[in-house]
Amino acid sequence: MPSIVTTEDTLRAEELAGGQDGILRRSSVGEYHFEFGGYLPDVVLAYETWGKLAADGSNAVLVMHALTGDAHVAQGDSHSAGWWEGFVGPGATVDTNEYFVVSINMVGGCNGSTGPSSLDEQDLPYGSRFPFVTIKDSVRLEARLAKQLGIESWHAVIGGSMGGARALEYAVEFPEQVKNLVVMASSAQATAEQIAFAQVQTQSIRLDPHFCNGDYYGNDARPDAGLGLARRLAHITYRSEAELETRFSRNPQDGEKPTGQLDGPRGRYQVESYLDHQASKLVNRFDANSYLVLTEALMSHDVARGHESLEAALARLEKVNVVVAAVTTDRLYFPEQSVKLASSLAKPKPVHYIDSPIGHDGFLTDATQLDGVLRTLVFGD
Amino acid sequence: MPSIVTTEDTLRAEELAGGQDGILRRSSVGEYHFEFGGYLPDVVLAYETWGKLAADGSNAVLVMHALTGDAHVAQGDSHSAGWWEGFVGPGATVDTNEYFVVSINMVGGCNGSTGPSSLDEQDLPYGSRFPFVTIKDSVRLEARLAKQLGIESWHAVIGGSMGGARALEYAVEFPEQVKNLVVMASSAQATAEQIAFAQVQTQSIRLDPHFCNGDYYGNDARPDAGLGLARRLAHITYRSEAELETRFSRNPQDGEKPTGQLDGPRGRYQVESYLDHQASKLVNRFDANSYLVLTEALMSHDVARGHESLEAALARLEKVNVVVAAVTTDRLYFPEQSVKLASSLAKPKPVHYIDSPIGHDGFLTDATQLDGVLRTLVFGD
Repeated sequence: MPSIVTTEDTLRAEELAGGQDGILRRSSVGEYHFEFGGYLPDVVLAYETWGKLAADGSNAVLVMHALTGDAHVAQGDSHSAGWWEGFVGPGATVDTNEYFVVSINMVGGCNGSTGPSSLDEQDLPYGSRFPFVTIKDSVRLEARLAKQLGIESWHAVIGGSMGGARALEYAVEFPEQVKNLVVMASSAQATAEQIAFAQVQTQSIRLDPHFCNGDYYGNDARPDAGLGLARRLAHITYRSEAELETRFSRNPQDGEKPTGQLDGPRGRYQVESYLDHQASKLVNRFDANSYLVLTEALMSHDVARGHESLEAALARLEKVNVVVAAVTTDRLYFPEQSVKLASSLAKPKPVHYIDSPIGHDGFLTDATQLDGVLRTLVFGD
Repeated sequence: MPSIVTTEDTLRAEELAGGQDGILRRSSVGEYHFEFGGYLPDVVLAYETWGKLAADGSNAVLVMHALTGDAHVAQGDSHSAGWWEGFVGPGATVDTNEYFVVSINMVGGCNGSTGPSSLDEQDLPYGSRFPFVTIKDSVRLEARLAKQLGIESWHAVIGGSMGGARALEYAVEFPEQVKNLVVMASSAQATAEQIAFAQVQTQSIRLDPHFCNGDYYGNDARPDAGLGLARRLAHITYRSEAELETRFSRNPQDGEKPTGQLDGPRGRYQVESYLDHQASKLVNRFDANSYLVLTEALMSHDVARGHESLEAALARLEKVNVVVAAVTTDRLYFPEQSVKLASSLAKPKPVHYIDSPIGHDGFLTDATQLDGVLRTLVFGD
């Protein structure tokens, strides 16, 4: 459970220039009133940086993580690999030799930023008392951190999936602070189907008898089964039907008999073992309440909220160079949703495609396909 | 909870000719050893009939129901509408004025046939002791009932979704008893993705604290929440993304506030209310153990099992007229799976399409689009 560490309100760019790459730091960004009425007396955001901020502050890049991601985009000086290695790093598409890259754990998460597992002023975990969070809340808090870091304007804000929603919302909220915006495998507004899949996931967690209405931190057991079930469903939507079929077909897991046995529960098909593995991995690194908070934030995603229309919201991006990318086989954020976003801009843009057979997760595994596009349109080689 | 009613072993065709249409009857088909080792001392199948069996027995049509369907295909003389009205009935595509239509509740179900809620010889519900059932088991038992009904050969066996799997398996098991086979929105073998979605559904039920390993019949509470959760996910897969978006988009349910409220749980989006409604309807008419048994039967669906290959299994249909149909927007049984089935026949066939925007459920709502095709190819007008 992360403790809340407050640091100085403002870290100067010079201090950061000598910092280590890919090491988690935390900073308090102060009290905050949430979009839909919640309040926290002190929000801490965890973040990591790579490279050095230029003296003129012109080389800052913000990389936004997806639902269960975190600030650890690339390895840097730490011992563990990041979740976007190959796309972010020295000499990579997002080149940490040239750019000062920042990634921030979203509020409500469980990787250093204030979330449901954080302690309140009475040293009790928030649990069920944690406020309802929106994507707008996340970017408003992140803009405070940017100011602390001495960043007046981002050369680029980049993200995929929920990270794409965050990147888009950041640019719409603070268009004067964003020169280039890259939205990958995402959309302007959560759709009915995304909400529907999300409902099943949130109910899976709430059905777990160990959930205890979100106040399980002092208990012996946590709602691991419910969180694992949510992850199983999510993971299916992250992959294409063809990818699952090619890898697993209907083969039984080695040594198991999925067609019933009389002396115990039936064995598994390979694809079931694969989903079990995905569930187990997530349960070991993620908090169920954070999954709920961030999933409901994503259900609420609507960049048009507070504006007259989607077009009016996107018209705020007049001076922002917007790049929209989709994965050809994505069936969670269908390419059509990227087309809708790109064509609703005041100056409609084409959608760039990651051509991958695996589905939504192609934005993680095959992001480097955008290397040429981004070097031309965003990083100006 | 259905009781097990044994009737005479053989009902003669003459008796049936005077029977009422669409009225549930039950018949014992005897003891049974299941494909994967289970045993029941007496299996009862519930069935309904419409129309009259011709003296030469040439006009019998077997209509197979899907996962949560039952034998009540059409209203007939009963008070309640059937689940395939318009497609089956007097003057309909499957014309009960001309054909003697039979539909049988699958073993393991909860609508009259022996299932987990049935009582054993000690008057205790089977619950967790109910055998593992396969689609092959279901059709082997159904063939016994056909014999009792005096039907030596079906003019046609027709089904969609799991009903299509049952129809196909029936024809492969008993090719000499089937003249025409119509498989709609189904496949020859369950795919990795179908197994994956099914795993999430079965685990939803098992996660419910009221499931009690399947032995909940004597308890005050049943695993309604788990069954409802399974149904929510299933229902999403029955509908297309476009259909959900067109109907619900991201609109809030009337009078509810889905974006968090401080004085209680958040309200719902319209699509959540819709899924809640689907869940509630199913929970009121279906047993969770039956849902598990039939879902696992469908996971096990593989018409090639016991044969050298899929092609070898399908080669048994040499003398059967096979009609394969798919729904254009189906994303549970993708049209490609129908193409695979049709093209794996010894004499490959074209796939006929139901052109519907709503997805898999189009086989229910728009089956009459096949009227011309079936009148020409199967019903010989």
